[in-house]
Amino acid sequence: MARRAFLKFGAALAGGVAVGAKASEGEQASPPADPPWSQSLGAGVVDRPYGKPSDFEASVIRRNVPWLTAGTESSVSFSPLQDLHGIITPNGLFFERHHAGRPDIDPNQHRLMIHGLVERPLVLTMNDIMRFPSVSRIHFIECPANGGMEWRAAQMNSLQFNHGMIGCAEWTGVPLSTLLDEVGVKKEAKWALVEGADGAHMTRSLPLDKCLDDCLVVYSQNGEALRPEQGYPLRLVVPGWEGNVNIKWLRRIKLGDRPWFSREETSKYTDLMPDGTSRGFTWLIDAKSVITFPCPEKPLEKPGLYEIRGLAWTGNGKVKRVDVSTDGGINWQTATLHEPILSKALTKFTIPWRWDGKPALLESRVIDESGYVQPTIAQLRKERGTNSVYHNNSIQTWQVKPDGKVFDVEIG
Amino acid sequence: MARRAFLKFGAALAGGVAVGAKASEGEQASPPADPPWSQSLGAGVVDRPYGKPSDFEASVIRRNVPWLTAGTESSVSFSPLQDLHGIITPNGLFFERHHAGRPDIDPNQHRLMIHGLVERPLVLTMNDIMRFPSVSRIHFIECPANGGMEWRAAQMNSLQFNHGMIGCAEWTGVPLSTLLDEVGVKKEAKWALVEGADGAHMTRSLPLDKCLDDCLVVYSQNGEALRPEQGYPLRLVVPGWEGNVNIKWLRRIKLGDRPWFSREETSKYTDLMPDGTSRGFTWLIDAKSVITFPCPEKPLEKPGLYEIRGLAWTGNGKVKRVDVSTDGGINWQTATLHEPILSKALTKFTIPWRWDGKPALLESRVIDESGYVQPTIAQLRKERGTNSVYHNNSIQTWQVKPDGKVFDVEIG
Repeated sequence: MARRAFLKFGAALAGGVAVGAKASEGEQASPPADPPWSQSLGAGVVDRPYGKPSDFEASVIRRNVPWLTAGTESSVSFSPLQDLHGIITPNGLFFERHHAGRPDIDPNQHRLMIHGLVERPLVLTMNDIMRFPSVSRIHFIECPANGGMEWRAAQMNSLQFNHGMIGCAEWTGVPLSTLLDEVGVKKEAKWALVEGADGAHMTRSLPLDKCLDDCLVVYSQNGEALRPEQGYPLRLVVPGWEGNVNIKWLRRIKLGDRPWFSREETSKYTDLMPDGTSRGFTWLIDAKSVITFPCPEKPLEKPGLYEIRGLAWTGNGKVKRVDVSTDGGINWQTATLHEPILSKALTKFTIPWRWDGKPALLESRVIDESGYVQPTIAQLRKERGTNSVYHNNSIQTWQVKPDGKVFDVEIG
Repeated sequence: MARRAFLKFGAALAGGVAVGAKASEGEQASPPADPPWSQSLGAGVVDRPYGKPSDFEASVIRRNVPWLTAGTESSVSFSPLQDLHGIITPNGLFFERHHAGRPDIDPNQHRLMIHGLVERPLVLTMNDIMRFPSVSRIHFIECPANGGMEWRAAQMNSLQFNHGMIGCAEWTGVPLSTLLDEVGVKKEAKWALVEGADGAHMTRSLPLDKCLDDCLVVYSQNGEALRPEQGYPLRLVVPGWEGNVNIKWLRRIKLGDRPWFSREETSKYTDLMPDGTSRGFTWLIDAKSVITFPCPEKPLEKPGLYEIRGLAWTGNGKVKRVDVSTDGGINWQTATLHEPILSKALTKFTIPWRWDGKPALLESRVIDESGYVQPTIAQLRKERGTNSVYHNNSIQTWQVKPDGKVFDVEIG
């Protein structure tokens, strides 16, 4: 089956190649001709002890929405998912969200205090923390406001701005359970206050059970030290839970017997329901998926065989299945999931699609190992109304027009 | 068992914390005092659309050995393994090896020609290649000269320079088998010539079987476009085989019925044996491991409980087991392997170790799923002599002295 699909694809591609070969800009460089860069000596290794992307990739950057967050006080930038591949987000392009800007912390002066309902309160240096037994895990982090600009209507017409507040990386650090063993948890303790060292003193309450389950106190992202905007030198990673509880610049953990109802879990990060009540402590990231190619930033060139590509994830554990529709959800086909399929990590999916040049409505829908099915926006609104901005994990519809351009639309 | 080890470790660490807490530099920043960066507004998101590490990490860089490669013509830089964690190598720190420097290639002009014993020769643009069905795989790439400076004697006293010509990343691209399906392989074809677009026209011969097995034509590394020094915009990844056949800046694939015996597989990348003959086409990276903490660059502070950390890999597939010795190979204990354990990828291992302050000889030894056991340098020399520089996958010995300093030594 796979092979047959490839061959069909190949046939379609051969046409594309003929056109490509006629393009004048590549003529000079086309084999067997030697391009200019094959005729001279390139740069050595000493000019870039720390590397950077090609200048030809200058448009692959994080972007912010000026009307959303103009200043430094409460900033957000979005990752260019339209230019990314696979499940690892490179550190330079991982989305940012700050509540009082990006502090510049001296790791030699940074401390983590663990106190409250513990037997032996401790203040730890970075060296102390890095001596503890370490683990490395690949997990996504998503801001619950990802997609929040479209709770009421499709308006952004962009993969980057609708879905770019997510990234996935290999995090290395110490299980929080190890540190809590070290200080000795008193039996009355049920909650943990976790606080950042930024000017906002970003603060959240976490149930002790989650702390002891899979939370990590992390100093490394994709092999190297955390980037400043990701919490350098120390952050919390709370696998599968909304980004803002993954406290950056982590400086304090206090155990208590009840939640603290901090500013960021009362005035923000609660979901105002139609009846005026609020959903609080809605930490879990429910299953979500999105087609990353094609998308508004990456239209189709002309009719032919394409590979539809996308990402799926769930705070519940592993992605079980992704279905793709090209007719706005009337018919669905199961996509191929790519290994490795890791718990609470991005999972890549693909499916071949022969575009006949007619209008199409592309959608993806994920089902996770808990059986949860990604909802439509209509289903979400029916349950939660439109007062909130958080936890919009609805199915994204991309409209393909006959000229190959792709638009962010809402149907049904 | 694990829990008992953690608690013991904790006890040892508590002593360390008391000392750390007395250090004056952290006093001001120590909770509950507010450090300066908690009292002001940090930077916003617009100044760094593409991020970079903290200035405090300025020493975490690739380094070259001046006496080994002074110029640009034949350059190599080594990855700072002593500062890295986990199995993903960040793109900015991935080792470099060039045979005619780093070309600066315009992706719009780059072409890949596939010709020779094929039914339908093709010239492909980058857009053509990116339309094919894609896969993403996590694999290591190692230069076979990694460790080559110590074939005759221990001399570098450095983890970075002895082992830093290896990295591991998530590569995204097209299976080479897909492209060969596209052009149609003639039945006489047995080999592929693969050529780079650099000034060296870096060229190697590969058996067709390997091409059809798991080789990838890659445009992305850890999510973003390949870095220039890693072959931007297109490279070959030949999983588990020596770095130089993973042709960077890939521009040409020619099928033939015999190998080409190019310069880089005759005058270089062959292993001169004691009897004057050469081993040629020694592509496979045999199983290898190394302890990354402690190491010469990261000594021990004082007696107490530590976590020995390291990396293991094999071109044969998956790592099966890693043993660690603290007495120069007399006694061995099995280390913990960390998930995910992926084929032809770095695998992290750890084991707790209580250092009593006496001299110690730390070693790690990997066994892979084929049953291959990492050899000692004495075993390697007995078989291959000391004429060659390539494929030194021997066990590394780190000598720990009573002051905690760590040295690169050779024993037995």
